This record gives sequence, structure tokens and C-alpha cells, in this order.
Amino acid sequence: MNKQSFSTNKPQVGIVMGSDSDLEVMAEAAKILDELGVTSETLILSTHRAPRETAKYAQNAKTRGIKVIIAGAGGAAALPGSIASLTSVPVIGVPVKTKSLEGLDSLLSIVQMPPGVPVATVGISGAKNAGILAGQIIGVSDPKISKRIIEYKEKIKKEVLAKNLKVKNIGWEKYLKEGK
Amino acid sequence: MNKQSFSTNKPQVGIVMGSDSDLEVMAEAAKILDELGVTSETLILSTHRAPRETAKYAQNAKTRGIKVIIAGAGGAAALPGSIASLTSVPVIGVPVKTKSLEGLDSLLSIVQMPPGVPVATVGISGAKNAGILAGQIIGVSDPKISKRIIEYKEKIKKEVLAKNLKVKNIGWEKYLKEGK
Amino acid sequence: MNKQSFSTNKPQVGIVMGSDSDLEVMAEAAKILDELGVTSETLILSTHRAPRETAKYAQNAKTRGIKVIIAGAGGAAALPGSIASLTSVPVIGVPVKTKSLEGLDSLLSIVQMPPGVPVATVGISGAKNAGILAGQIIGVSDPKISKRIIEYKEKIKKEVLAKNLKVKNIGWEKYLKEGK
Amino acid sequence: MNKQSFSTNKPQVGIVMGSDSDLEVMAEAAKILDELGVTSETLILSTHRAPRETAKYAQNAKTRGIKVIIAGAGGAAALPGSIASLTSVPVIGVPVKTKSLEGLDSLLSIVQMPPGVPVATVGISGAKNAGILAGQIIGVSDPKISKRIIEYKEKIKKEVLAKNLKVKNIGWEKYLKEGK
Amino acid sequence: MNKQSFSTNKPQVGIVMGSDSDLEVMAEAAKILDELGVTSETLILSTHRAPRETAKYAQNAKTRGIKVIIAGAGGAAALPGSIASLTSVPVIGVPVKTKSLEGLDSLLSIVQMPPGVPVATVGISGAKNAGILAGQIIGVSDPKISKRIIEYKEKIKKEVLAKNLKVKNIGWEKYLKEGK
Amino acid sequence: MNKQSFSTNKPQVGIVMGSDSDLEVMAEAAKILDELGVTSETLILSTHRAPRETAKYAQNAKTRGIKVIIAGAGGAAALPGSIASLTSVPVIGVPVKTKSLEGLDSLLSIVQMPPGVPVATVGISGAKNAGILAGQIIGVSDPKISKRIIEYKEKIKKEVLAKNLKVKNIGWEKYLKEGK
Amino acid sequence: MNKQSFSTNKPQVGIVMGSDSDLEVMAEAAKILDELGVTSETLILSTHRAPRETAKYAQNAKTRGIKVIIAGAGGAAALPGSIASLTSVPVIGVPVKTKSLEGLDSLLSIVQMPPGVPVATVGISGAKNAGILAGQIIGVSDPKISKRIIEYKEKIKKEVLAKNLKVKNIGWEKYLKEGK
Amino acid sequence: MNKQSFSTNKPQVGIVMGSDSDLEVMAEAAKILDELGVTSETLILSTHRAPRETAKYAQNAKTRGIKVIIAGAGGAAALPGSIASLTSVPVIGVPVKTKSLEGLDSLLSIVQMPPGVPVATVGISGAKNAGILAGQIIGVSDPKISKRIIEYKEKIKKEVLAKNLKVKNIGWEKYLKEGK
Repeated sequence: MNKQSFSTNKPQVGIVMGSDSDLEVMAEAAKILDELGVTSETLILSTHRAPRETAKYAQNAKTRGIKVIIAGAGGAAALPGSIASLTSVPVIGVPVKTKSLEGLDSLLSIVQMPPGVPVATVGISGAKNAGILAGQIIGVSDPKISKRIIEYKEKIKKEVLAKNLKVKNIGWEKYLKEGK
Repeated sequence: MNKQSFSTNKPQVGIVMGSDSDLEVMAEAAKILDELGVTSETLILSTHRAPRETAKYAQNAKTRGIKVIIAGAGGAAALPGSIASLTSVPVIGVPVKTKSLEGLDSLLSIVQMPPGVPVATVGISGAKNAGILAGQIIGVSDPKISKRIIEYKEKIKKEVLAKNLKVKNIGWEKYLKEGK
Repeated sequence: MNKQSFSTNKPQVGIVMGSDSDLEVMAEAAKILDELGVTSETLILSTHRAPRETAKYAQNAKTRGIKVIIAGAGGAAALPGSIASLTSVPVIGVPVKTKSLEGLDSLLSIVQMPPGVPVATVGISGAKNAGILAGQIIGVSDPKISKRIIEYKEKIKKEVLAKNLKVKNIGWEKYLKEGK
Repeated sequence: MNKQSFSTNKPQVGIVMGSDSDLEVMAEAAKILDELGVTSETLILSTHRAPRETAKYAQNAKTRGIKVIIAGAGGAAALPGSIASLTSVPVIGVPVKTKSLEGLDSLLSIVQMPPGVPVATVGISGAKNAGILAGQIIGVSDPKISKRIIEYKEKIKKEVLAKNLKVKNIGWEKYLKEGK
Repeated sequence: MNKQSFSTNKPQVGIVMGSDSDLEVMAEAAKILDELGVTSETLILSTHRAPRETAKYAQNAKTRGIKVIIAGAGGAAALPGSIASLTSVPVIGVPVKTKSLEGLDSLLSIVQMPPGVPVATVGISGAKNAGILAGQIIGVSDPKISKRIIEYKEKIKKEVLAKNLKVKNIGWEKYLKEGK
Repeated sequence: MNKQSFSTNKPQVGIVMGSDSDLEVMAEAAKILDELGVTSETLILSTHRAPRETAKYAQNAKTRGIKVIIAGAGGAAALPGSIASLTSVPVIGVPVKTKSLEGLDSLLSIVQMPPGVPVATVGISGAKNAGILAGQIIGVSDPKISKRIIEYKEKIKKEVLAKNLKVKNIGWEKYLKEGK
Repeated sequence: MNKQSFSTNKPQVGIVMGSDSDLEVMAEAAKILDELGVTSETLILSTHRAPRETAKYAQNAKTRGIKVIIAGAGGAAALPGSIASLTSVPVIGVPVKTKSLEGLDSLLSIVQMPPGVPVATVGISGAKNAGILAGQIIGVSDPKISKRIIEYKEKIKKEVLAKNLKVKNIGWEKYLKEGK
Repeated sequence: MNKQSFSTNKPQVGIVMGSDSDLEVMAEAAKILDELGVTSETLILSTHRAPRETAKYAQNAKTRGIKVIIAGAGGAAALPGSIASLTSVPVIGVPVKTKSLEGLDSLLSIVQMPPGVPVATVGISGAKNAGILAGQIIGVSDPKISKRIIEYKEKIKKEVLAKNLKVKNIGWEKYLKEGK
């Protein structure tokens, strides 16, 4: 990955999270977007602790050129929904796993939105998939990004098939030992 | 209950809900507050569908004299938490039972708030208890309301004991039949 | 809504479901897309019962001009993920509520995708939101649709505020009675 | 925080827990109350192991000047509800996470109270929020405490915004590294 | 069953429930105890609404000759545990199914007792089994009751085998039709 | 389906259930086996109420020519596992949906077997699939049955495709109306 | 505790477990029974791996003088129920926590017994409580044991009150530090 | 176990998994099949990342002589079902425990298959049982394998009884210490 990262200028995707304790999880979205050639910006905001600033970000995102917002939060995870309520840009929600309840609270708080205000929810702590989904959405009208998605999918397919070949060639016993 | 209800003038409690489909549940809060002599107002607002108006209500509540806010919502129930983020007034959350997941989604979305922004959560569809809790909170500094809480608790105790006496006197078989 | 619906020519969105028992739920996606002026097609396919035909549909969707696929299924709901594995087009998953487990099985089967293959999951039986989300995705590059999304959000806001005004004017007791 | 802590004289809040194994969690309530200038006392009682002493504490709390009781317990967590049954003072329940079931048992045992006897429940192991909520309740009639709540909310907002600024300035990669 | 029921004099088993809405479920315990020849009394008490009376009942049960207490409650079901905390008599808990959460809240509130104070929990709404278990406990030292338990088990075995024979003889198609 | 059903002579599959209340669900297994040309017998047995007779059935099944046993039960559903512990014949478990907990109890009681004694578990109330699975197992060595499985799968595929064609031809609006 | 333990001669309680991996948990039952002066025997049996031997144990328990059986198992935990089906002696079930699902599977497999065959279930991994419950059951007819139960309850009450006094005297800060 | 393992030539069982991170769990199936004398092959495939190759494997399995397929996957675990949709060979599903939700997502994604396409599901991470079940299925028509199953069951019974004897002889205290 080129260290002159795509993410510095005019971001296409906003990656927002409720706390810096979510950063390790949410960084996966920034990384994969970079790999796909999609520019992004990363913010720590909070519906519950900085509601006005969060609202302002959501309201201005579209005119600032943001095409997709990825929002991650844990527990009573209101961030993705409250951003979605203030913009027409698609919002992807990442339910971050919490200390209790295994992330089920985060998931239900994000996915069960009322009619009218969808959040495109990915799996628990699935920030990488959020980044790929943002790429797919941008790819709907940007053939260059769409092509990179196809290449990425091809790459992960090859990785699976290479592993399959290796387990066939050396046997699972050796594979398991080497993996350690 | 006196039909010249307490709830018309200068409300002390705001009862807010995300949808008029929650009104049948949430009306229990209004009723019990009326019975306790606490004035209230009832609103249909929505973090997700009318975010600015909801924010405005939360921000102005205290200066309007509101002492406690009761907020009920179902599913990804962001209403109580988003109100709590914009006021220093105690917010009581009522997780309304939804069509799927038996209200577990509503409960977790409301109770699992991040540090700094509590929501005083009651049981699923427990609007009556939300009203009583609001009365208890106001009763901390209002001996008249506190007395009514004590009388109310006395009343429900007597109801239980009267039922106990009845089952003792007529036996459970007869009690069951009469109940039908 | 004009009966010469948008949904007949060159569809932009494919709405796929695993069984015709899901049609009542999934029709909500078709209706709202129609209202937003997004063309769609509706199919009954099944990863488990017609795997080859489903795969063929997914593989050809993009070249046929499909920009977003909405896939709904219940239980061990493999349809959204298996379509997502065969296309670079964004796939929105609708977990349909089933007879047992309240749709939790459908939700987890759809949302918990492995890294590399996201499904944009909406709430249980949330087909309407799937339609709106598809509109938002198309709206990223189509200002006409984006404008309709904004108008739609404005409309539902006004509905909430109208209800709020009504409850204020006539009181919750009368509102509840009229609602019946 | 002034080491001549507020918590020694005439307590306004009683912090009660079922076992000293809950003390590490529950101490967060004592700390934040101290920070907010609310006096408190800390007790280890148990509905199940010392029922009479617990009942006595609940019955006398109000006349001793206690305005709010915070009760934390895990598993079949009867403590908050049983205290609530014996006082008109608002009771805040803290479901403490247990070794099995991730605290879901504690949460449901506390929040699902019958009509008439509410417990103001906070999130799993959310003792800090219990303390803040107690402060908000006392703040309803004590403007000094209410002001401290507002200052506290302002403080945590600034912390979020400072983190946001930092991640903007140094980038998430560096932020993540520094955090370790 | 002889209408001069065993349950009138000197009860051996106390059947206590938190609300008369539990009576239909809990009556199954009274019926089967009657069938087993164990005397019982039925009470409506409530840890949360009539705590002192409930405590008094628990404390006096043993000296009144009660050998086993069956306690049924729903939601945050504190009744069985709070009775168990005040007596050395074995307490059987019946988690009554509630309107939300399918009785999972009742079950966890009753079964997850802390070390030192067990409640012998039966299945959700399993009052009949509570009665049989009470019979088995009394049967430990009362051979007459123990013999009735054995006869009862023999009876239900014969019922199963009779149904098995019938399905063998007439086939499942006819069996299903007749059952309707 | 020929009324001279396959199920009368020398059964290849034993269909066992814990109660005749399970018969309506379990009959689906008998029906599909009949359609596949696999002979079966239907029994009402119970690990908990007729343990010795159930054990005897399991122990003798293989020498009586039974190749697969299908066992359905609800709640603490011990039947499939206890049969599996007494025979080397593959046992298919059907978790029958119960009045509380939506069949989750039945599912976990059947599927979570200890190492050494597997039960081939199908979905909640999935007796039809249990029958098909039994057919597939017998089809491993019986090409005639294996062929019928392939034909059956072909049939259900055609049904899906026919529905797909119909929805394409008449549109979903008309399809929905006709379905009512 | 006297090292000439009560548990060697003529056992009154049988403690049975499905695997020696359950022994660390189940030993708590043996210890407390010893402390209460109730003799016990400890066995490793398994409904699923040694069904005939387990059945034999259950059938002979009563005539061998066993008054209560404690059975612990994890996962699809059939042991308590299958023993209960073969004896009229009360059976106490201990759901042992497993590697996945936090013991919820064990709990539901044990507690949700069908009508006619109760298992007295205690909390997850609650073997100590199983022992105390066995003591309470024997205490119904053995005043010596009943007295020891009362003494034990008094002891744990005193422990709670001593801790409460300590936290009062030294303050929670010091208590927490000393505890480490 | 003979190091000239059975698993090299003409495999009877295909063991397929979605990721090499599942290999440590799934290897248990390969080991036990080897012990039972059933040949197997091990593959890393993925419905979501290598859909065409997975489909090809499923379609050709039967003509290549595969009699049973064991498929393991975690999260939205579509692999077992998607293989089952493309073959008439019995498919055994192994829900692999994931980082969040304790494997409940994997279990529901695999077991809740729609009518027509069963997957024989074993417990969470229960690969050993999947291997034994595959042996039992092959044993339906192969008396040599069936005999080995019986011998295996006899072996694990003896292990349980040996442990039981040991705990009887040396007592649980010593047994526990030695085990450490």
C-alpha cells in the first residue's frame, strides 16, 4: 500500500466513531478504503457526549463532498442512526463489540431503525466490511473504484484457493503445525 | 380521577414518544402522574424523523420548568439517550415492545448508555412505572408528592392483601372461576 | 402513486426473495422505490432451492444495469450473502421474521458476514428501509433521486410534527380514542 | 478531587451492594458523586443473606436524609427491587456483570419490575452513570448540583472534541500507536 | 379427585404467588398436590408490593408446620429468593411467563441465586412440576407420599404407552384427525 | 401419493416423539418419507416418562432393521440424545417449538451433545427436513432412494422457478392479491 | 472442617456428574454437604456415554438409602432429567458452564423438564447451592440438619455484616486497596 | 493410530471449512474419521469468497465417490447450506465458535435451513461429533465401520467408568489434585 495515502485530500467517506476506544476496530475501515483508492477522513464524535458537533458534521457532510458515512459505536449505539437522521447520504453502521453482551446490544441498537431512516449495518466489529461496502456504493457510479472492488474480491478468492492448495499438498497436520 | 386533570398547566414532566403507535403504552405514564398530582405534557417527537425539533425540545425543557422527561421508543430506541445528551434534567427511558425480538432491542438500546449520559430505564413497556419514578424524583424535594407516592404504595399493598384474603376465604378454585 | 409505475422498464434495483411467503414483507421495498422514482424488478429465487439460477442472476446483474440488489430471506438466510459473493454491486439484506426465534436467526445469518463480502443489513422485516437505502445509494450519483430522498425525509418529519400538534391540541385521551 | 471528600458527613446518597466483590464496580458511583459534590455512604448489604438488615436500611433511609439510593447486584439481583419496595426514595439499580450470561441475568432481574415499584436501571456495571443520575435527581431541586452536572457534561464534551482534534492533527495511525 | 380436598387442614406446602394474574398457572401446583394427598394453602403475596407481610409469612412458615414453599412470580421475580432468604424450609421457584421476553426474565431472576440461598427452580410456568417436586421432598421422610409419587410416575408412563399403542394401531393419520 | 403407503412394512426409519402434542409437527417426517419411498414407523415414547421402554426401543432398533431414527421433542429435549446413546444408528433430532422461549430450549438441548454421541439436528420444528435427511442417509447406499432425493430437489427448484416466472409475468401486486 | 469427613459412610446424597471436567465445579456440593454434616458419595456417570450404568444407579439409589441426588452436566445436559425419570427421590440439577453459550444451553436443558418429571434446578455452576438445597430437603425431617442450615445462614449473614462494618470503618478506598 | 493414515486414498468424506482459522477445530473430524477407518479429504473453500469453486466441489462430490460432506463455518455460516443445495449427499454442518456471540450466530445460520435442504447440524465447534456422525452414516451400509462405531462407543463408556472407579477409590479431593 502506497504510504502517500489517498485519505488526505477531499475525503469521499467520513469514518466517525463514538470513542477513541473504538479506533482500533474502526481503523480497519480506513485501511481498506485506502487500499481501494477511496479517500476518507476519521473523526471521534459522540451523539451522547457531543450532540451538537455530531449533528453539525452530519448536516454538512454532503455539501462537503462526503458520499458515504461510516459510523461505529458500542452499547446503546445511537451514533449511526442519529447521523442518518440528518443527512441523505447513505450511512453504514458498525456495531462495536462491548465488554458485556458480546456486541448484541450494539448490533440491535444500530440495525433496528424505524421506517424512514435506514442504517446499512455490517457485522459486529466489521469495520473492514464497512469500508468495502462504502467502496461498492461509490463504485456504483465510479467504474475505477468498482474495478478495484472486483480486483479485491479476486485477491481474497486467490488467497482462499492458495490455502486450499497448500492444505492439499502438505496435509492438514503439517498445515496446523506451520500455522503455529 | 378528577377529569379536570392536573396535566394542562405548566407541566413538570414531559412525556415524549417516538411514534403515535407508542401512545397506548405511554398513556399509562400520563395517567399515573395525573393520579399522583404531577402535571405533564405529552409529545410525539422522533430522534430519527424529526431530529432538530427533538433537540430543541430537550434543550429548552429545563428553562420551561420541566423537571423530569419520560421518553419511550421501540427498536433502535435512540430517543431517550439523545434527549439525555442535551439536558441536565433526569431522563427516564421506556423500552416499548416491538413486533420482533420481544422488546429486547428496545431495552438494550436504551439502558446500555455510555459513561456520562445515563438514562433511568424501566421495564419493557413499563410506562406506569416511569410515571411513578418521575413522581418519586419530584418527591425528593416536594413533600406533597412524596406523600402521594407513599399513599399509592400503601394502596397497591392493600390491593394485594385484599386479594390474598379473598383467595383465603373463597379458595383458589372459586377465585379462578370468578375471575373469568 | 401513478399506476404506470416506474418499475417496469430497465430496472435499477433487483428485489430478490427466497420464497413467495416473503413477498408481503418485501413488497414494501418495491412500493417505496416506486415512490422514489427508482425502477426495480422483483424475483423469487433461492440459494438453497435454486442455487444455479440465483448465482446466474447475481453474476449478470451488473451488466444488466442493476445498481443495487435487495435480498430478503428468513431462517438460515443465505440469499443476501451468496448474491454478494458473486457481484460487486452493493447488496442490501432484509432479515425476514420467521415463525420461531423472532427473526434473530435471519438477522444473524445475514449481518455476520466474513471479511471481504459485506451485506448492508437493515432491521428485521425492514424492507421499506431497504428500499430507501437503495435510493440513497443511487442518489450518491443521481441528484434527482437524492432530492427525492430529502423530500421523503421532509415528508415523514412533517407527519411526526402533525401528529405532535394533534396530540397537543386534542390531548392524548381523545387521540387514543380516535385512533381506534 | 479534594481529598477532604464530600462523602463523610450526612450522606445524600446511599450506595448499597450485595457483595464486596461488587465494590470495584460500585466505587465508580462513589467517585463521581464525590466529584459532583454529592455526599454518599457505601454499604455492603444483601437481600438474600442479610434480609432484615437490608430492610431496616431501606425503611430508615428517608428519615436519615437519604435522597437517592443506588443499589448494585449481580445474578438474581433482588437488592434494588427489594429496597425500592420499602422506601419512597428513588432507587437506581446497577446490574453487575456476572461470571456467566454476561450480566443479562442481572439486568433483567433489576429492570423488569412489576407495576408500582420502579427501579431506575442503568447499563451493565454502569455505576458511574448511576452516580451521575443520582446527581441529576438531586439537581432537580439543588441548582448547585445541577450546575455541576452541566459542567461535567461540558467537560466530557471537551474531552471528545480534544480527541477528535488530535486524530485530525496527527492522523489515526499515529493516534493508535501513541495510545499503546 | 375427591372434592373433600386434602388442602383444607394444616397445610404442608405453601403456594405463594406475586399476583392473582399468576393464579391460573399456579393452580396446577395446588391440583397435583391435592392429587398426591399433600395438604397446601394458596396465598397472593408480593416482595415488591407487600414486603413486610411476605417476610412475615416466610419467617413463620416453618413453625406453622410448612415443610416446603412453592413461590411463583414473573419478570424481576424476587419472590422465591426473598422468601428463601428468610426460612430454612426448601423453596421451589416457578418462573411465570410474562408478556415480553417469553419468561426468560422470570427464569433468570429466580434461578441465578447467590451462594448460600438456593431456590429449587422448575421450568417456565412449570407449576405442576413444582407440586410434584414438593411431593418428592415430603416423600423423603413420608413413605405414603413417596408411594403416591411412584404411582403417579407409573400412571403417566402408562398414558404415554397407551398413546404409543394407539398410534401403532390406528396409524398417525387417523390419530391426528381424531385429536382434532 | 399412493394411499397404499410405504410405511406399513418393515420400517427403515423410526420416527419417535416425546408426546402426542408433537405429532402434528412430526407427521411431516412421515409424509415426506412416504413420498420418497422410504418405509417408516411412528412411535410416542419419552425419555422422561417411559425411560425403560424408550431405551429398549433404541437398543433393538438396529437388529429390527431400522437404519435411521428421527426423534422429536420440546423443552429439555433429552429424547434424541438418550436414543443416540443406546444405538450406533444415526439419530436425527427435531427440536419442537414450545410455548415459551420459541424453541431455543429445544434446539440447545438437542444440538449441544457431548463428544462421542452426535445427534444430527435440523431446524426448529423442521420434521420435513428430518425426513429428507433420513432419505439422503439411506440414499448413500440405496441408489433408488438417492435418485428420488435428486428428483425431489428438482421438483422444489421447479416450484421456485415457476413462482419466479409468475411474479415476473403478473407483477408482485397481482401476485400478492391472488395469494390471498 | 473435620478431615474425618462425613462423606465416607452410608451416603445420604449422591453427587453425579457427566464428566470429570465438571469435578472442580461439583466438588463445591461435596464440600458444603460435609460442612453441613450430610454424608455424600461422588460419581462420574453419563447419560450419553454410559447410559445403562447411569440408569442402574438411578434405579437403585432409593433402596441404597440415597435421599437426594445432585446431578451436574453441561451443554445438552440430559443427566439430571434422565436420573429423575428413574427414581422418586428429588433430583437437583446443576447446569455447568460450558465453553460456548455461557451455560445458557446447560440451564435450559435441565430446567425445562416436561410435566411429571421435575428437576430442582440451581444457578449456572451453582453446585454449592445444590448442596445447601440438599441439606434443606433432608432437614425437612431431620432437625439436626435443619439446625445446621440455620446456623450456616446465620454465618453468611454475619460475614456480610462484618464486611459492611469494615467498609464503614475504613472506607471503600482502603477496603478496595486491601482487597488486592 | 497408524501413521499410514486412512485419509490419503479415495476419500469417502469431504471435510470443508470456510477459513484456515477453522482448521484447528475441524481437524478433530479428520482425526476421528481416521481412527474409525474412514478415508477423508480436507479442503479450505468459502461460499462467500470462492463461490464458484465451492459450487463445483459440491456438484462433483458424489461422482467422485464422496458419501458424506462435513462443512464447518462461523458467523453468517452459509457454507454447509450452500453445499447442501448442490448435492444429494448428506451434509453435516459444524457451527464454529466466533469472536462475538459465542457461536450462536454460526449455529442459527446452519441449523435453521428451509424445507427441502437439510443440514445435519452438530454442536458448536463439535467437529469430532461430525466425524462420528459421518462414520455412523457410512456404517448404515458398511458393517465394518458400524462395528468400529460400536467399539468406539464402548471405549468412551469404559473411560467414563474408569474415571468413576478412580474417583470412588481415591476420593474427589485427591482426584482433583492429581488432575492439576
